[in-house]
Amino acid sequence: MKANYTRPLDLKHGRVDMNHGAGGRATAQLVSELFARAFDNPWLAQGDDGAVLPAPEPGERLVMATDGHVVSPLFFPGGDIGSLAVHGTVNDLAVMGARPLYLSASFILEEGYPLADLKRIVDAMAEASRSVGVPVVTGDTKVVEQGKGDGVFIATTGVGALPPGRAPGGASARPGDVVLVSGSMGDHGMAILAVREALAFDSEIRSDSAPLACLVETLYAAVPADAIRVLRDPTRGGLATTLNEIARQSGAGMLIDEAAIPVHPQVEAACELLGLDPLYLANEGKLIVVCAPEHAEAALAAMRAHPRGRDAARIGTVIADDHHFVQLRTALGGMRMLDWLSGEPLPRIC
Amino acid sequence: MKANYTRPLDLKHGRVDMNHGAGGRATAQLVSELFARAFDNPWLAQGDDGAVLPAPEPGERLVMATDGHVVSPLFFPGGDIGSLAVHGTVNDLAVMGARPLYLSASFILEEGYPLADLKRIVDAMAEASRSVGVPVVTGDTKVVEQGKGDGVFIATTGVGALPPGRAPGGASARPGDVVLVSGSMGDHGMAILAVREALAFDSEIRSDSAPLACLVETLYAAVPADAIRVLRDPTRGGLATTLNEIARQSGAGMLIDEAAIPVHPQVEAACELLGLDPLYLANEGKLIVVCAPEHAEAALAAMRAHPRGRDAARIGTVIADDHHFVQLRTALGGMRMLDWLSGEPLPRIC
Ligand SMILES: Nc1ncnc2c1ncn2[C@@H]1O[C@H](COP(=O)(O)OP(=O)(O)OP(=O)(O)O)[C@@H](O)[C@H]1O
Ligand SMILES: Nc1ncnc2c1ncn2[C@@H]1O[C@H](COP(=O)(O)OP(=O)(O)OP(=O)(O)O)[C@@H](O)[C@H]1O
Ligand SMILES: [Mg+2]
Ligand SMILES: [Mg+2]
Ligand SMILES: [Mg+2]
Ligand SMILES: [Mg+2]
Ligand SMILES: [Mg+2]
Ligand SMILES: [Mg+2]
Repeated sequence: MKANYTRPLDLKHGRVDMNHGAGGRATAQLVSELFARAFDNPWLAQGDDGAVLPAPEPGERLVMATDGHVVSPLFFPGGDIGSLAVHGTVNDLAVMGARPLYLSASFILEEGYPLADLKRIVDAMAEASRSVGVPVVTGDTKVVEQGKGDGVFIATTGVGALPPGRAPGGASARPGDVVLVSGSMGDHGMAILAVREALAFDSEIRSDSAPLACLVETLYAAVPADAIRVLRDPTRGGLATTLNEIARQSGAGMLIDEAAIPVHPQVEAACELLGLDPLYLANEGKLIVVCAPEHAEAALAAMRAHPRGRDAARIGTVIADDHHFVQLRTALGGMRMLDWLSGEPLPRIC
Repeated sequence: MKANYTRPLDLKHGRVDMNHGAGGRATAQLVSELFARAFDNPWLAQGDDGAVLPAPEPGERLVMATDGHVVSPLFFPGGDIGSLAVHGTVNDLAVMGARPLYLSASFILEEGYPLADLKRIVDAMAEASRSVGVPVVTGDTKVVEQGKGDGVFIATTGVGALPPGRAPGGASARPGDVVLVSGSMGDHGMAILAVREALAFDSEIRSDSAPLACLVETLYAAVPADAIRVLRDPTRGGLATTLNEIARQSGAGMLIDEAAIPVHPQVEAACELLGLDPLYLANEGKLIVVCAPEHAEAALAAMRAHPRGRDAARIGTVIADDHHFVQLRTALGGMRMLDWLSGEPLPRIC
């Protein structure tokens, strides 16, 4: 069924206008000709106020996560706001131990934004959603006046199912546990900054934006569920901030070995140039795992056997510490505190 | 557990700054001292990447709905963006026939926005969420530079449980069904426009922003589930657009009696002044019900007995029509087509 739109949407030369957000014919046309066509699934096609979906299996719990995305620029090496909005939310479900099931997407568009660029973003989002097998089942579209937004903002919310026995959480790290990372640190943050600062390198620094759901399933297949104490994706604030969050939530400290942390040489070099620390740069396809010591080798091996965990490394241990400090043994053998990100913000990285 | 914030957030004179969105210490402080304190529930307090929640009861399906909120101004008679963001999403779950269970909230804040105003919004949101019994279990906070946003945008997503037997949907209206509305049309839209246009009336026009979940349960208690063919909240585009959506989805027409549609005299007067039609103005606490004819009287009586449905009315019927036209028998006895909202947009009404 179709409303009799006067003419098809001009996806080549058209622009977002205020009518696209007014909830009338133009909104319906944008949804059916652009969004619903790209996301293409029966729940969305229904066109009702929400989506009716199969519930998790008996015994499974529900997991819910949300992220707004305001990354600037909207397109960057290795991704764009559309694929990022899928990966970001899928990853927050995955690090809760859940199988991601469904996504919602809320778009806030700026008047005047080219429909052709919006289509690129929506197509990339649809492709990311298809490739991780998590459909966008419901959505919303609002438009704000020129100068009251910035092209495109996308808030995605994910719902997943948590199999029985799994209960990773930031509060579950215990002294003696081992800290693992799935790969190099800082790629996403530096990819964005390099575009913004128009840095030129021999080869482009690419975002690591990618889904972690499959890597997490691989991990759970390799070690007992209760050996996996904490999973987290080190996004804004980077590895340093994420480790501090875990330390605070668990009431423990950490001892991290700087030399063991994988960082791409190019990211390292760009950091030196800009006076930044890769441990504070965002990642969008990396996993931190806090694991029971007796299963750490198996966990590491399982990650390394997976394409998204090839460079996985053991980077430190959880220790007893009433101050919940994260300490870094530096490459030169000294010690320094690895504090939360503070001071100069790195805005709009995701 | 608490990070050692240098000093507490200045909720009286402070302003949102870019650091509040950078994902480090300042973000954590804003979340713990403002958001988590107001929303106050164990899932959110956990502070993990998502919330682990009880799943729907066996036999129930899952319902998911999302809406971005960009209303301007942020505060208006009868509500604000915070309470609206709760009601909007709760209502989309309710009109799917679902019991609303959980909400997520994604905030996009503009640099420089006063924290005191943000606190008013968040407190109103928390109050609305408490009073409808649907907690905000997970959230996200991003900040954009001054001039790249407009104070506060909030995207809420809701998850609900659909009891067996219920299946209202826009495609289920059949010729002979009766169309009911739960009360007066156009209040929300006109409340917003009146503030924007600085119209002065004898008494203020107030938004009808309110949750519909309880009214929907009352309806299901009064008539068999399959008698309720369609439920919908006539938000953007108003009653006219919503009826056209239903007609299109169902492949039917409608015959609506203008004189039967409740409109507050003040809204009527303001519409005349501004050259607007109340049937195209948004509502944020009203229900459209398409009901099997033999149960229409019971449904109407049940709504009228509920505080949110006191002014409920039977406004027309579904008819066979291959063009899916919505026709209005005017108060003067003539007939006119009630088309989708098009032409002059009414921007940022929700
Ligand atoms: N950007 C989008 N991507 C995918 N689907 C969308 C998008 N925007 C809207 N939709 C879908 O279009 C349909 C109508 O959405 P709409 O937002 O108009 O409904 P609503 O939320 O009931 O109304 P309102 O937003 O005025 O409260 C829904 O099925 C919704 O899931
Ligand atoms: N505005 C908010 N209201 C309520 N809770 C919030 C809000 N913003 C963040 N939170 C909560 O704070 C915690 C940390 O959120 P944060 O967004 O930093 O995590 P993340 O999504 O894993 O990281 P990122 O957003 O960088 O991907 C989560 O438990 C989240 O639910
Ligand atoms: Mg609706
Ligand atoms: Mg996240
Ligand atoms: Mg909507
Ligand atoms: Mg996360
Ligand atoms: Mg809605
Ligand atoms: Mg987040």
